[in-house]
Amino acid sequence: MRCLVTGAAGFIGSHLVDRLLEARHEVIGVDNLSTGHLKFLAAASSHAAFTFHRLDLIAPAALDPLLDGVAHVFHLAANADVRDGLKRPRLDLEQNTLVTWNVLDAMRRAGVKRITFTSTGSVYGETPVIPTPEDCPFPVQTSLYGASKLAAEGLISAYAEGFGIRGTIVRLVSILGERYSHGHVFDFVRQLQADPSKIDILGDGKQRKSYLQVRDFIGALLHLASIEPSTPVQIWNAGTDEYVNVDQSLDVICDELGVKPRRRYGGGDRGWVGDNPFIFLDCKKLRSTGWKPGVPIRDAVRDTVRFLVANPWVFETGRATT
Amino acid sequence: MRCLVTGAAGFIGSHLVDRLLEARHEVIGVDNLSTGHLKFLAAASSHAAFTFHRLDLIAPAALDPLLDGVAHVFHLAANADVRDGLKRPRLDLEQNTLVTWNVLDAMRRAGVKRITFTSTGSVYGETPVIPTPEDCPFPVQTSLYGASKLAAEGLISAYAEGFGIRGTIVRLVSILGERYSHGHVFDFVRQLQADPSKIDILGDGKQRKSYLQVRDFIGALLHLASIEPSTPVQIWNAGTDEYVNVDQSLDVICDELGVKPRRRYGGGDRGWVGDNPFIFLDCKKLRSTGWKPGVPIRDAVRDTVRFLVANPWVFETGRATT
Repeated sequence: MRCLVTGAAGFIGSHLVDRLLEARHEVIGVDNLSTGHLKFLAAASSHAAFTFHRLDLIAPAALDPLLDGVAHVFHLAANADVRDGLKRPRLDLEQNTLVTWNVLDAMRRAGVKRITFTSTGSVYGETPVIPTPEDCPFPVQTSLYGASKLAAEGLISAYAEGFGIRGTIVRLVSILGERYSHGHVFDFVRQLQADPSKIDILGDGKQRKSYLQVRDFIGALLHLASIEPSTPVQIWNAGTDEYVNVDQSLDVICDELGVKPRRRYGGGDRGWVGDNPFIFLDCKKLRSTGWKPGVPIRDAVRDTVRFLVANPWVFETGRATT
Repeated sequence: MRCLVTGAAGFIGSHLVDRLLEARHEVIGVDNLSTGHLKFLAAASSHAAFTFHRLDLIAPAALDPLLDGVAHVFHLAANADVRDGLKRPRLDLEQNTLVTWNVLDAMRRAGVKRITFTSTGSVYGETPVIPTPEDCPFPVQTSLYGASKLAAEGLISAYAEGFGIRGTIVRLVSILGERYSHGHVFDFVRQLQADPSKIDILGDGKQRKSYLQVRDFIGALLHLASIEPSTPVQIWNAGTDEYVNVDQSLDVICDELGVKPRRRYGGGDRGWVGDNPFIFLDCKKLRSTGWKPGVPIRDAVRDTVRFLVANPWVFETGRATT
């Protein structure tokens, strides 16, 4: 099968490319390299079945020359920076909502009928229903990131209904593991490598988050993408039944790095405006298909720290985002 | 108070302008006149407290010169054409989602803190929960119109959370009454004036819809806008506890016009792809504030037919949309 992966040079996208190639698919990778790294595609690039195109999908017809014969689009390209949404309020709109419209409309023109989309648990805003199932009460958005991803979900659903496309929408928790290059583990490791005696923590350290190891998540994503939706779109939460708070995650990081920093808290129950102090998804629907995660969160944190220690170049190019 | 109304020359917008002027507010009206009519603003234009600006809000900074001293933005400008979303799939994205972003970002730059937005019951897609309350299970979008309005709601919520704006979001049923210039009553009256012997009906005539008379709706909108949101946004359904189906509405139209056409049905349970055969909102939240509608649906249909008969010019310039 010929697949097209947007965001192919990103943390998650590059793992997906590797796995699709392993499964003997032909893979067209697209990325604007705004946050992705060509190094993540080093292994893929040696593969005859892989081609890479540096494109910014904000250009409406950018995908048109690449969709010929494509059976499945995995749309992962996004601004994944939840925290800085308020500093650059147009970025989420452009890279998450408008780019998704461009991908869908290119698919419509080319007659491509299948899309899998990585959405986010942030679309639940601050729902009081925790763990949060896919059909929780209609939530109110609290971040431009969540709003932009929800808008993308809506576009996919409407295109699916209107143009006979089938969509798999996966709302994910945060992801950790090899090639991780933004977020709290990234921030903490960078701080501790610069000065192991102290660490600054946004909020009160009690914000609870659920994480999946990236290998686990790619397994879930491919599993769900292989299920042909019985309705125009199928929506799935993807997470674990575990969660940790920021302090607990920091315990693992400090243990792995062998440091004992003084912890300095910014205060408040959230890291930044629009941060959600507790994201925890109800993943019964995913479990009911037989899939289950294999890596505990603390091990995923440890994998991430080891990757960062072994790949200091990521700090030079990466950005400090959630 | 100085108010700015987008979509001021539209069916609903022009009524809102009139009512705000009656209440002695200063009103700045903005419209691109793509579907609005300056004739609807004839009375308003004689008012010293009213100014009108023909602008297309798709230009990002279009509102900037007008927001000085504005206390409240009523954002009604939209592509209200649900039915033709699939023919021009970028129109909803631009006029409903991007324009809302432009309005919000102009408000942020100008420091305007209050917005009231006309959303739609279409954001509920085809929810199985009928009547549908504001917090029904997280719905799946079925039309580009609904998706584009939901995206706008999300942007308003995220801007409210992030920038200290307060938003009143009103999800409305279809509106009927004077100045109505698109939708099924418009289509039927036009057909029957051309040929009173027969009428073509999309779907099976059993699609049920709930309608508010526009004067009632403006009352509800101003009532809700006067309630300062206790959270960044407050979301309200606005409708009646009544509904009619297309056939019943046609009965009233035929009675008013004194015609007995042969009814020819297109078939199927919906008028077009993405049409929702039954939109009926649970309006308990609105009722709990003391507001209630005054005009029965059949009277609203009759008011609309009388307006159309008395204003044949609307057919020359109006478009046939839902």
